[in-house]
Amino acid sequence: MNVIVDLSIFPMDKAGTSLSPYVARVIDIIRDSGLKHELNPMGTCIEGRWDDVMRVVDACYRELETDSDRIYISMKADCRRGRQDGMDAKIRSVREKQR
Amino acid sequence: MNVIVDLSIFPMDKAGTSLSPYVARVIDIIRDSGLKHELNPMGTCIEGRWDDVMRVVDACYRELETDSDRIYISMKADCRRGRQDGMDAKIRSVREKQR
Amino acid sequence: MNVIVDLSIFPMDKAGTSLSPYVARVIDIIRDSGLKHELNPMGTCIEGRWDDVMRVVDACYRELETDSDRIYISMKADCRRGRQDGMDAKIRSVREKQR
Amino acid sequence: MNVIVDLSIFPMDKAGTSLSPYVARVIDIIRDSGLKHELNPMGTCIEGRWDDVMRVVDACYRELETDSDRIYISMKADCRRGRQDGMDAKIRSVREKQR
Repeated sequence: MNVIVDLSIFPMDKAGTSLSPYVARVIDIIRDSGLKHELNPMGTCIEGRWDDVMRVVDACYRELETDSDRIYISMKADCRRGRQDGMDAKIRSVREKQR
Repeated sequence: MNVIVDLSIFPMDKAGTSLSPYVARVIDIIRDSGLKHELNPMGTCIEGRWDDVMRVVDACYRELETDSDRIYISMKADCRRGRQDGMDAKIRSVREKQR
Repeated sequence: MNVIVDLSIFPMDKAGTSLSPYVARVIDIIRDSGLKHELNPMGTCIEGRWDDVMRVVDACYRELETDSDRIYISMKADCRRGRQDGMDAKIRSVREKQR
Repeated sequence: MNVIVDLSIFPMDKAGTSLSPYVARVIDIIRDSGLKHELNPMGTCIEGRWDDVMRVVDACYRELETDSDRIYISMKADCRRGRQDGMDAKIRSVREKQR
């Protein structure tokens, strides 16, 4: 299946400081995975096969676990058999149908 | 507060057909609201004040309710006092900290 | 439509302290709404008509906004026409089909 | 870390039929894992160590993948170091603070 995961993951024990250094470390890991991805203001979309995408989610958790005592994750996934290049295809398909 | 909502909303009773025509109607409503927004492969980020953003979420639901008997919504929000231009600021802040 | 919302809402600027006093204030508001609801370890399910449920979500946000400078919300909704007593019906329907 | 995941997973290509037979198969897998869990109207909370909980999420996906061509997942997780018996502790902690 073609899997697109939107992942938000951040420490909950770092109030009073910006979360962006933690998010940057997570995005570095996603980028280094080589999987197609796209940062948005509320999360990062990652596309690939289930195993490959979930391996990246696991690596992101492990990265934050090194220096956070509380982590929150919000994730949604759209998994579709036979879809090709799902992230681009979904956007294009919506754009074509707009008024 | 500066509110950024990531909204996914789609009918659950239209299997066998593409969901993109429904999503396109939702994006049209978001665009017509005049609020800053950004489509991503798994949802749409909308930025504004709480009341204004939630009025758009309400309008999206009402649009799909006209011809859907089952609707699924997944939504997350990051609300922050004093933030300006949150969608751009969040992305920029992460990008600056990446390796 | 019969709407069931699962709502998680918490301040993000209170690290180092327990979040439960904030969650307790939110649950008090949900209870006082008179809508059917059910607390779970990761959120609270609220059942009713769209307008009524969203009015409660709005009230929860306003409660936390009084003394929080950053709030995170994660919400999902299942909206179904003609369903009666959805929270109980959904659980019962799954239980009947388990091995 | 003590991890609590709230998992919703369902096929998106089975409209016109009830989703409960699919959800029941998922709950059977969660129950058979031996991990502490709790069904709610919008998902199932599963508690354990990260690896153990994610192994169950993986098994749930694989179960639905056998006869679904499109699967939607919505998941949130609260991971906390040193917490014991998190699902019960979180509920109790909120209940104690309510009016």
